[in-house]
Amino acid sequence: METEKLVDAVLHRIFVEMEASGRHVHVTKQQAMTLFGHGLTPKRELSQPGQYLSNERVTVVGPKGKFQNVAVLGPERPEGQVEISLTDARTLGIDPPIRLSGDVAGSPGAILEGSAGTVTLREGVIVAKRHIHMTPEDASAMGVKDGQVVRLQTYTHRPLVFGDVVVRVRPDFRTRVHLDIDEANACGFVSGDLGRILQ
Amino acid sequence: METEKLVDAVLHRIFVEMEASGRHVHVTKQQAMTLFGHGLTPKRELSQPGQYLSNERVTVVGPKGKFQNVAVLGPERPEGQVEISLTDARTLGIDPPIRLSGDVAGSPGAILEGSAGTVTLREGVIVAKRHIHMTPEDASAMGVKDGQVVRLQTYTHRPLVFGDVVVRVRPDFRTRVHLDIDEANACGFVSGDLGRILQ
Repeated sequence: METEKLVDAVLHRIFVEMEASGRHVHVTKQQAMTLFGHGLTPKRELSQPGQYLSNERVTVVGPKGKFQNVAVLGPERPEGQVEISLTDARTLGIDPPIRLSGDVAGSPGAILEGSAGTVTLREGVIVAKRHIHMTPEDASAMGVKDGQVVRLQTYTHRPLVFGDVVVRVRPDFRTRVHLDIDEANACGFVSGDLGRILQ
Repeated sequence: METEKLVDAVLHRIFVEMEASGRHVHVTKQQAMTLFGHGLTPKRELSQPGQYLSNERVTVVGPKGKFQNVAVLGPERPEGQVEISLTDARTLGIDPPIRLSGDVAGSPGAILEGSAGTVTLREGVIVAKRHIHMTPEDASAMGVKDGQVVRLQTYTHRPLVFGDVVVRVRPDFRTRVHLDIDEANACGFVSGDLGRILQ
C-alpha cells in the first residue's frame, strides 16, 4: 500500500490527468427559473469540487442549427454561458471566440430552450480555451504558476503537443487538463489518458 | 518578380501548406452507377493533381445518425471509402479505425444513399490518419522520405505540434498537409495556414 501511494505520488509529479468537456451550458439562477421553473438540481458531481452535472437539459439554438439535450452544469453562475467546439459552432452557424470560461464580453449569443421557457443570451457563446486546473501543491511541484502558458504532451492514440495551454491555480481545483471535443478527438483521447507539461 | 520567386522558394523549403479535409466519400464505378445512374462528374479540381470534387452527393447512414449532402471525390476508385472525423463517427454511431486512405480492411461499413439508388458498404469507414503529401523534390529538400513519421508544428490560432504525421511521397502529389476537421479545429486552422516539419 505504501508502495502504491509512492508510485501514485511520483506519477502525479510527472503526469496530469486529462478530461474532455462536451458542449455544455451555464445559467444564472434567474435563467434557471425561466428555463425550468426551478433552480438546477444535481445529478452527479464533476471532477472540479463543487461543480455538478444537473438533471436539467436545454436545446441550444443558433442561426443555422440547434443541439438538443445539452448538459447544464451547476451551480448557477453570475452569467449565462454556452461552451461548444468549433465543429459545433459550424453546425449552429455561430462564430465564437476562443476564451477562458467566464470571459464572454462581446461574444455571440444563442437561444436556450428549457422545459418551462426560453432564454435569449445576448452574448456568452465561447469555445473554451484549453487549460489546466491545478492545486497550488501540484503547480508548485511541477514548477508552474497561475496564468502561465505551457505546452502539453499528450500520451494518447494520436499523440501531439498542445501549445498555448493556460495554467489555472486555485486551492479548490482538482488537477486536470480540460480539452474540448475537437482537441480530444485530434489527439485520440480516451478516458484516463495522461498528459505531461512541457515548459 | 525574381525576388518573389526566391522568397517563395525559400518559404517552401521551411513551411508546408495545410488543408482540412471535411467528411467525404470515394466510390467505385459500379457504386457510382448504382447511386447516381452514371459515373462521377467533376465540379472542381482539388489540390492533389487529378483529384476532383464531383457534382454528386450522398447521404451517409450509420446506426445512430446520418449526414446528408456529403461530398463525393473523384475519380472513382477500386474500393468505396468513407472518411469522417471522430466527431462525425460519434454522430453516426460508428467506431472507425484511424488509417491512411485506401487501408480499409476490417473497418466498419455504412449505407450510402444517392439520387438513383443505395449502396451498402460492408467496410470502408475510416478516420484519415494525418499525413503530408509531398513531391520527391520537396521531400528531398526537407530531408524526409516516403513513409517517414514526423512531427508538424502548426502556425495557427491554437498552435500545437502534431505527432505521428505520415509523409507520403509521389511524383504526382502536390505538397500539402492533410488534417481532418477535428484536427483542423483543435489547432484553429484557417485556409492558408502553414506548418513546419520537425524531425
